[in-house]
Amino acid sequence: MKAFASDNYAGVAPEIMAALVAANHEHQPSYGEDVMTKEAIDLIRQQLGGQAEVFFVYNGTAANTLALKALLQSHESVICPDSAHIVNHEVGAPTAMTGSTCLKTANINGKITPAWIEEAYRSQVRWGAHATLPRVVSITQATEFGTVYQPKELAAISETCKRLGLYLHMDGCRLYNAAAVLNVSLAAMTTDVGVDVLSLGGTKNGLMFGEAVVFLNPKLAENFAYIQKQGLQLQSKMRFIAAQFVPFFKENLWQKYANQANQMCQVLAEGLRAKGYHHFDYPVETNHVFVRLSSDVVAKAQEAVPFYIFDEKTQLARLVTSFDTGLADIDKLLAVL
Amino acid sequence: MKAFASDNYAGVAPEIMAALVAANHEHQPSYGEDVMTKEAIDLIRQQLGGQAEVFFVYNGTAANTLALKALLQSHESVICPDSAHIVNHEVGAPTAMTGSTCLKTANINGKITPAWIEEAYRSQVRWGAHATLPRVVSITQATEFGTVYQPKELAAISETCKRLGLYLHMDGCRLYNAAAVLNVSLAAMTTDVGVDVLSLGGTKNGLMFGEAVVFLNPKLAENFAYIQKQGLQLQSKMRFIAAQFVPFFKENLWQKYANQANQMCQVLAEGLRAKGYHHFDYPVETNHVFVRLSSDVVAKAQEAVPFYIFDEKTQLARLVTSFDTGLADIDKLLAVL
Amino acid sequence: MKAFASDNYAGVAPEIMAALVAANHEHQPSYGEDVMTKEAIDLIRQQLGGQAEVFFVYNGTAANTLALKALLQSHESVICPDSAHIVNHEVGAPTAMTGSTCLKTANINGKITPAWIEEAYRSQVRWGAHATLPRVVSITQATEFGTVYQPKELAAISETCKRLGLYLHMDGCRLYNAAAVLNVSLAAMTTDVGVDVLSLGGTKNGLMFGEAVVFLNPKLAENFAYIQKQGLQLQSKMRFIAAQFVPFFKENLWQKYANQANQMCQVLAEGLRAKGYHHFDYPVETNHVFVRLSSDVVAKAQEAVPFYIFDEKTQLARLVTSFDTGLADIDKLLAVL
Amino acid sequence: MKAFASDNYAGVAPEIMAALVAANHEHQPSYGEDVMTKEAIDLIRQQLGGQAEVFFVYNGTAANTLALKALLQSHESVICPDSAHIVNHEVGAPTAMTGSTCLKTANINGKITPAWIEEAYRSQVRWGAHATLPRVVSITQATEFGTVYQPKELAAISETCKRLGLYLHMDGCRLYNAAAVLNVSLAAMTTDVGVDVLSLGGTKNGLMFGEAVVFLNPKLAENFAYIQKQGLQLQSKMRFIAAQFVPFFKENLWQKYANQANQMCQVLAEGLRAKGYHHFDYPVETNHVFVRLSSDVVAKAQEAVPFYIFDEKTQLARLVTSFDTGLADIDKLLAVL
Repeated sequence: MKAFASDNYAGVAPEIMAALVAANHEHQPSYGEDVMTKEAIDLIRQQLGGQAEVFFVYNGTAANTLALKALLQSHESVICPDSAHIVNHEVGAPTAMTGSTCLKTANINGKITPAWIEEAYRSQVRWGAHATLPRVVSITQATEFGTVYQPKELAAISETCKRLGLYLHMDGCRLYNAAAVLNVSLAAMTTDVGVDVLSLGGTKNGLMFGEAVVFLNPKLAENFAYIQKQGLQLQSKMRFIAAQFVPFFKENLWQKYANQANQMCQVLAEGLRAKGYHHFDYPVETNHVFVRLSSDVVAKAQEAVPFYIFDEKTQLARLVTSFDTGLADIDKLLAVL
Repeated sequence: MKAFASDNYAGVAPEIMAALVAANHEHQPSYGEDVMTKEAIDLIRQQLGGQAEVFFVYNGTAANTLALKALLQSHESVICPDSAHIVNHEVGAPTAMTGSTCLKTANINGKITPAWIEEAYRSQVRWGAHATLPRVVSITQATEFGTVYQPKELAAISETCKRLGLYLHMDGCRLYNAAAVLNVSLAAMTTDVGVDVLSLGGTKNGLMFGEAVVFLNPKLAENFAYIQKQGLQLQSKMRFIAAQFVPFFKENLWQKYANQANQMCQVLAEGLRAKGYHHFDYPVETNHVFVRLSSDVVAKAQEAVPFYIFDEKTQLARLVTSFDTGLADIDKLLAVL
Repeated sequence: MKAFASDNYAGVAPEIMAALVAANHEHQPSYGEDVMTKEAIDLIRQQLGGQAEVFFVYNGTAANTLALKALLQSHESVICPDSAHIVNHEVGAPTAMTGSTCLKTANINGKITPAWIEEAYRSQVRWGAHATLPRVVSITQATEFGTVYQPKELAAISETCKRLGLYLHMDGCRLYNAAAVLNVSLAAMTTDVGVDVLSLGGTKNGLMFGEAVVFLNPKLAENFAYIQKQGLQLQSKMRFIAAQFVPFFKENLWQKYANQANQMCQVLAEGLRAKGYHHFDYPVETNHVFVRLSSDVVAKAQEAVPFYIFDEKTQLARLVTSFDTGLADIDKLLAVL
Repeated sequence: MKAFASDNYAGVAPEIMAALVAANHEHQPSYGEDVMTKEAIDLIRQQLGGQAEVFFVYNGTAANTLALKALLQSHESVICPDSAHIVNHEVGAPTAMTGSTCLKTANINGKITPAWIEEAYRSQVRWGAHATLPRVVSITQATEFGTVYQPKELAAISETCKRLGLYLHMDGCRLYNAAAVLNVSLAAMTTDVGVDVLSLGGTKNGLMFGEAVVFLNPKLAENFAYIQKQGLQLQSKMRFIAAQFVPFFKENLWQKYANQANQMCQVLAEGLRAKGYHHFDYPVETNHVFVRLSSDVVAKAQEAVPFYIFDEKTQLARLVTSFDTGLADIDKLLAVL
């Protein structure tokens, strides 16, 4: 049975599992000194630029937290929309591990605007050393609501960051879904628009475990090997993270999986509309649908097909498709709604 | 080719890999709400006591660091031998994540003594609130030198801890090797002697990734779900850690693998002695041999079979056997020495 | 010349300076073991209850930060209004020293409401160990805008805290001004309504330096001697903090100074109204006036009498009276406006 | 009655107290924007070089901790002798506020050697990103045992630091005593030998409160205003720290006070020898005597004149003279021994 609760309810994509089995051959140097890790890094550089410095970590919270740790001192702060995963669902890990404050702005469909960045920046620097010093802007692509920044929106944010002396971090745990729907390269949303550091996903798009911290601005990576190890993120048998990323990029599996999830999500949204559900709180752009259900069907539906209610007051359901969601799964969900 | 560099050069044991493949079936609740995680926890409780609280994390540095974080405030300190992994090879992660100081004592074959614990304790408390307040003793079983504490040694340490109001933490990344050589249960070295919190290994004994933090003193686990998530150690697709631990305990694979590594290590030590190498810096008890080689053979031997020189001055080699080390691998190493 | 920029532009009240000179006699045990420190603590207990545990620190940011550190672990969070000093003008010190997140609610005249506390609490706990665990509510009396909570408002907040399992911290850097205007005892706003920990001011009401952290809930003070020393707040020649607090409480100087500042503030507000300034952003209750000036007079007036513009857009001036503000000082200010 | 327990049992030197009284005149800008703070900074620059960046803090633990915070990231470490105040009597404050590990070497009379620095450095860097990255060496002048580094010893340490890429921090809480006995300028032991950051004392040489963090390498001061405020060390009524340092340097009081303490210490040592006490654990160079007493006199003597026993086993007394110790005080102590 397939759930719509989260893309991490899914298992491992078959090509990825096959790669793990194949990688289990003899001994290999640990901690990333193996051949497969080098190959995986090279493949990511092909996507994001030859200058990129790449480090593999275990999960998305780790990628975000350690990426930020590489950029921040405790008196400095991060500007992000109040919808950001880093301030809502990581138990304050970025704050706990850096000592830094996160300055939350409003969001529009999960997105921040250049004006809000500048306002947050000014709110601090006018007080000199009596307030924090903003140093980083963190955005999510695709956002926590499944929406996407257009490349020109990203460029405008990046320009604001450069002008104010701020680094730009992107939480790209679902970057693939954004690239698929925008029909652009991964670089078009990151390297090309001036992102400094990228949390590059994996687990939410078919991997067993493993994400990457990618420094597109490579001089920021100077201390990261230490930060990674101290940050509890150095896998000893590293080949088993790398082995997943190799076919993922070499065979364009990232696109295939993201397209499948995105397309099924559109089918789901259509089906909901056809059933009379018209109140979508956010545009359906990648693999998330936020739809208001009638309270009489929710409990029964959740029993049949797991999903979450995001806002109890409005019976707002969050429905997420995965790399392995099929038409039959959608039919089954629609049947109980 | 098999290396003697570390037990993390090995891959995944075949039974474990088969379990991972089998676990990759349909969707499962994430973050540990799945059935397999419950089964793995139950199996660990069968080994260590029904009261144990069990949390899975990614690696050994994480298990140690977060176990200590659950026990410590920043003004409190940890007493450990100066050979401990937590003070030598974790980039200070326990200190960085707790703010606490580690008080290093001497070691004898990697082991601390009750007298040294008491001395370290007195060195602080005599100054009242001008020095740290010792709160935890951390020991490693089997030690970083492959030696083991006898259960009665552990009981004596534990008694000292209880008397002084100190918690006892055990780094058990190679607990299986110790149990195998002592021919005792896992509980005999932990629950039965009064260990409060245990870092229970996995990766060094045939797993792909995954260790456990086990609170034998369950009230210390109260906040650990938060600490685990904030500490970057909550695997979303948790079933893939749990799936490895299930056969590991259900089929006593932990014993089989540890015995293999230990027995091959004895064969290796015998072979070294037979070749005229008699200077072993530590007793050979589990899967580590520390032997002084002649400098003229080291470089050539390392080319043929990877291993590390632990002390350049004395050409002290650290040779580690794994769950998959075979007689042919030992012959190959001996042939080049 | 007297300024209206802040109550810390003032010097030391004459009775306090005399006490410092008198205390400078022979040697005394350091770090608080002297007789005068004991006397000062007893005097504070007379104000706040015999069970109170009292520790002297250097400044208000320290009092707030270390009081919170005594209550918090890094996965726990603090609920406070977005006007709080702890989140605006301490460079994130509470966050940096605890690792904890501050959850900002709205404010009405610098005050939080029970409903907002509960809403902030629910916003976290509904996510379990994926969000922070609220542990403390922090409020300021008198507020950063010079307004005061009525005792019954404090009781309602405290009741909400008890019900939700939250500690109540009060930033009382200007508690004296609130007591003076409400004409109640210090205990009536703290001990009697269930405040757990109080940052008790000094410097803003005539002292040279020195504040106190007062645990009205004494079991929370268990580790504070260590937290104070590690937190860089243990004055060696402690008698020189204590010597200031002795006459401050023994001779009711706290009331005299606070009354003077409050009364002059009312005179100032009257004078402003008489000059045609009618736009006050907050009620004038203690020693702060927030008044919108006309932009043509601000620069010239600031040259003659220092004060700050709090909001550039509205030319909102923040005018603060001190223990030593006199009628002539107010006349001088009004003359240039 | 004068004690020999610590130089912080003393009060405030009369010239300093007079300066405090004189400074209490009208309003002054707070947080260091006043004229007196500028004058005090200029006077310190006259002593230590015009490029120096100077910040006033409250106490010595703060000066050390924040100086180190300005130099360190959490994966970096500090090398210091095991006799250092920063690792023994600050409750681990430097570690708690930086996350960094302190690597303790041996000491000879409280001093470190270039060889031990290099050894500690190599012990880490050989492990790459699996151990900490040494970044700072911290030494104390005069040492915790009252001994002094000769300028050429300091130059050799500094040269080692430069060669290895390490910053050199000096805990100078008793720098004045060292300068007095060596008969050199403050710069000769700091600026001239390549110290990067200095904790410059005050309280132990006649001040009421207040120390300075002095960046002789000014580019390291870039963020210190934020670090100071976040580190709970920004005095609002700053003129009252500055007012003490002005005469201290302008009238060479630092020399006068240090000479008095040093000379009385020599008198005390002579007197002890004359009474038959010959076992001094450290050379008597500044204002500390470490002498083994007979156990039958200690308790009675401590009742008459407060002092501390540093090592119970050997009845090793630590006797400290102050700026206000006189011959009569020494006679009184000798009389009871």
